[in-house]
Amino acid sequence: MTNLPTVGFIGLGNMGSGMTRNLQKAGFPLVVTDLRPESAAELIAGGALWAESPAQVAALSDLVITMLPTPRHVEAVLHGADGILAGIRDGGTWIDMSTSVPEPAERVRRDFAERGLRILDAPVSGMSIGAATGMLQIFVGGDAADVARLRPVFEAMGDPERILHVGAAGAGYAVKLMINQLWFSHLVATAEVLAIGVKAGVDLGVLRESLVASPANSNFVQNDVLSILDHGDYDEGFAIALACKDLGLSIDLARSVGVPAELSAVVEQIYRRAKAQYGDLAGEMTPVKLYED
Amino acid sequence: MTNLPTVGFIGLGNMGSGMTRNLQKAGFPLVVTDLRPESAAELIAGGALWAESPAQVAALSDLVITMLPTPRHVEAVLHGADGILAGIRDGGTWIDMSTSVPEPAERVRRDFAERGLRILDAPVSGMSIGAATGMLQIFVGGDAADVARLRPVFEAMGDPERILHVGAAGAGYAVKLMINQLWFSHLVATAEVLAIGVKAGVDLGVLRESLVASPANSNFVQNDVLSILDHGDYDEGFAIALACKDLGLSIDLARSVGVPAELSAVVEQIYRRAKAQYGDLAGEMTPVKLYED
Amino acid sequence: MTNLPTVGFIGLGNMGSGMTRNLQKAGFPLVVTDLRPESAAELIAGGALWAESPAQVAALSDLVITMLPTPRHVEAVLHGADGILAGIRDGGTWIDMSTSVPEPAERVRRDFAERGLRILDAPVSGMSIGAATGMLQIFVGGDAADVARLRPVFEAMGDPERILHVGAAGAGYAVKLMINQLWFSHLVATAEVLAIGVKAGVDLGVLRESLVASPANSNFVQNDVLSILDHGDYDEGFAIALACKDLGLSIDLARSVGVPAELSAVVEQIYRRAKAQYGDLAGEMTPVKLYED
Amino acid sequence: MTNLPTVGFIGLGNMGSGMTRNLQKAGFPLVVTDLRPESAAELIAGGALWAESPAQVAALSDLVITMLPTPRHVEAVLHGADGILAGIRDGGTWIDMSTSVPEPAERVRRDFAERGLRILDAPVSGMSIGAATGMLQIFVGGDAADVARLRPVFEAMGDPERILHVGAAGAGYAVKLMINQLWFSHLVATAEVLAIGVKAGVDLGVLRESLVASPANSNFVQNDVLSILDHGDYDEGFAIALACKDLGLSIDLARSVGVPAELSAVVEQIYRRAKAQYGDLAGEMTPVKLYED
Repeated sequence: MTNLPTVGFIGLGNMGSGMTRNLQKAGFPLVVTDLRPESAAELIAGGALWAESPAQVAALSDLVITMLPTPRHVEAVLHGADGILAGIRDGGTWIDMSTSVPEPAERVRRDFAERGLRILDAPVSGMSIGAATGMLQIFVGGDAADVARLRPVFEAMGDPERILHVGAAGAGYAVKLMINQLWFSHLVATAEVLAIGVKAGVDLGVLRESLVASPANSNFVQNDVLSILDHGDYDEGFAIALACKDLGLSIDLARSVGVPAELSAVVEQIYRRAKAQYGDLAGEMTPVKLYED
Repeated sequence: MTNLPTVGFIGLGNMGSGMTRNLQKAGFPLVVTDLRPESAAELIAGGALWAESPAQVAALSDLVITMLPTPRHVEAVLHGADGILAGIRDGGTWIDMSTSVPEPAERVRRDFAERGLRILDAPVSGMSIGAATGMLQIFVGGDAADVARLRPVFEAMGDPERILHVGAAGAGYAVKLMINQLWFSHLVATAEVLAIGVKAGVDLGVLRESLVASPANSNFVQNDVLSILDHGDYDEGFAIALACKDLGLSIDLARSVGVPAELSAVVEQIYRRAKAQYGDLAGEMTPVKLYED
Repeated sequence: MTNLPTVGFIGLGNMGSGMTRNLQKAGFPLVVTDLRPESAAELIAGGALWAESPAQVAALSDLVITMLPTPRHVEAVLHGADGILAGIRDGGTWIDMSTSVPEPAERVRRDFAERGLRILDAPVSGMSIGAATGMLQIFVGGDAADVARLRPVFEAMGDPERILHVGAAGAGYAVKLMINQLWFSHLVATAEVLAIGVKAGVDLGVLRESLVASPANSNFVQNDVLSILDHGDYDEGFAIALACKDLGLSIDLARSVGVPAELSAVVEQIYRRAKAQYGDLAGEMTPVKLYED
Repeated sequence: MTNLPTVGFIGLGNMGSGMTRNLQKAGFPLVVTDLRPESAAELIAGGALWAESPAQVAALSDLVITMLPTPRHVEAVLHGADGILAGIRDGGTWIDMSTSVPEPAERVRRDFAERGLRILDAPVSGMSIGAATGMLQIFVGGDAADVARLRPVFEAMGDPERILHVGAAGAGYAVKLMINQLWFSHLVATAEVLAIGVKAGVDLGVLRESLVASPANSNFVQNDVLSILDHGDYDEGFAIALACKDLGLSIDLARSVGVPAELSAVVEQIYRRAKAQYGDLAGEMTPVKLYED
């Protein structure tokens, strides 16, 4: 017999499938749904319950987790006759682990204030390998008491030492988006200086090592760029279309909090230029190609 | 008795004064000049010879080093009746250690090809403290044989392990400019994400630590930004007007080698916006203020 | 006796109040609603019917017009128990005259395809004065037959010679956003060259006249900028917060159709910098101030 | 017999050849030189004197005009044993009609103050056709008395009604550069909105006409863009490499007067991207191609 809470989980894609497998392994009873029912087969074989709608997931669970591609998908599973809000009990808990922006949750909090829902945002980093191995980094925004109460759930999916309570509601989204934005900015900034230096006659390896040895060192130039330089690998595991999506969310967040961000906006457009030129499925490091040849 | 070569040195500013002291300490006979004769007092007391012009420096030395603020200053001491070219012997050596662009040296190499001059570029990093302690990092562009022959001269001024031969003529300039450009780009990129995250409700310290723990880590966010966060210190030791000068040279280099560089160009303009708003003498990290308010 | 169709109208703000008055004057029976019931007083005195919800507007009208501030407002009046879609008859007509993006209408068209709704987008230019005088310019996207059928409705609100059928569904939105984007881009581009020229010693009036006489002439430099130069008027009638909203929609449209747009993105951020510095209510021409000081 | 002053003219390229022909036709005795002696054949046949160097031109003339590709060329003909300064009499007149920046003339004015030279900048617009027909527009910077005295010289080359005294020394350069900058900015801004609108489903012709009829109208969208739309002509008569050169000078001017110019800087980089992609000889309107396909 388990007395762990029943976890509802909506979104069984690359990330969600690993995360649910780890929740199941940790003993959490699961209720799941997805647009593609076949994605739940293994979980159901392991004892998970299939639900026909987000509303049903919410009605049958102690807490609901969403792990979806975009804010629009999040909105779509919240509202309407089949939505989470139609099924969740008053005072119930919803954790959004999607890479998203604060607005959808803010609207729920405002428009349904009287229902006393507990809402947390908890985006992750670590890619599908982190999801599969239960070693995700998790950035949680919300009330401290909720975070403490839900810690065992997060620990089933992430590295216990890297589950960070980063602030009030919305802070988790912000941290995740800013990490991505800064990495993308580093990529473009580095691509430019490498291209200029090489065209000016410096050997690429020597230039990279000089940067690594300098105050301009970064994880990108020290480690990540080697994937391109050593293997010609632009990381097709993370498509540039997804990177553009994240960059769009990051600029949307800057808009909504009123911070002008010229450099970040230019980074988004350079990513979009690379996406237009090399296709949606090109790897997230493809903008470097705009500076090669 | 010394049989070390006599070193001519033009430019006894913040950097040059430390570098010449270390050359003198290492036993190199010196011939020096500067627009401000008083800057040479200590060197002369130590045995250095004062020259009335760059031409005279060149005539009395085995090799000439220039350490000047801008390419224009470099051009000014090269040409004319009083210039280095009027004094240097055929086959003589000129090392430009200024943060500059390749054009002035290229023109000398082209227009005076028949004179067989040995020309190297060897910009440094490490600031005035590195100059004073003889621990500069030195990026040398030029022929390998020249670099080997002149290594003892460089070792008198820099850290022997960080004296790098980075390529043919011009490569040293390029490495130095690209290090600076990338650091300035990191500064603006980081300022934007910190401002957005904080306005979105994340604690500044938590946000910084999340970035440090992420793939978006850089020396800037891990170390340099603490000067602002912990001490409110925007590094007035390196004025923003100098940073703008370096950014201009970096864009000039991109122009001359034909690499489009949207992000770097925007970084230059953001620096110029900060310079216009906070004054020429504000510290090189002042652009961060544009995102504080 | 009129046999004109009954027009439902949602959104009685600065623009909508003038437009409905002109529809009423032209004899169209009206059913209206708005978040602020008092905004309908005059129309009701003139014979218009008040409806309690968008659904009721749609149920009581032959066609429904929306004139709302943002795509989110448009979405809000479409969906839910009180929304247009809950009241409109199958085969009914909805015209969105808001400055918006195509997505909300596209989703209706896709998700409710079987209902056979006739949907047009028809944003306007001409500001509140054009709305009040019935002289708006109207950019209509949709099927030609619908546009022809609805022409009398448009002519009640706009200048007959400037009611343009610009393409299929969505084209009206795009034309309106691109007009605004280009005007904002002209403003920033002009502000920069005027500031540079004046700082370089050219008299402002002479510089403006030289530009007007040159291939770089534009309506902005020839006419609109005079509002600032002659009267210090930055057009507070159109707040910079609205301009930022429009610029955001324009970048959103660029994203959704996959066109990289570096310059437009920078224009948006410069507008956002001016909004952050001078406040939401500053006039739409306030970014010029960033280049004055 | 003529009592017109003898005009020295250095630079007989596309522009200079037309300008000198018109000076000769107006009766001015000419002394000319150029790197390509053959370019002077026709002028010599018409009575002009050939000089072996800029110094000789200056020594034999009452006033010297330079019409050269870049500031560096201007510097090159000023200084050295063969330069203008070596030949010009004290109190003599030099008019630089090149598209350039103020610095070279400023240095002469400062370093040779005691010689009392009269120096004017007088860049032109109107392209080689304007030079050939004597209908150039001329923007003159300098002292009013000098401008008045030299008016007949300018009228031999330009349209009398479009010879404008735009301010003190340097103002002519600034006006010319700002006209070019604004036109290039209009080109990129327009290319972006046309591309977005067309991808969003608007007919290109309808979109252009809507823009022309709107407050966002400009000479570029009304007239110049037709060269591309109607004839596929990107104006190869003015190579993109020259446009990039002018954009660089314009950013240099912004730097030297301390005006941040984010948009203009991005325009320069987009031009450089087009130059890198389509080659130095592509037409000045080629950046539009970056937004096509």
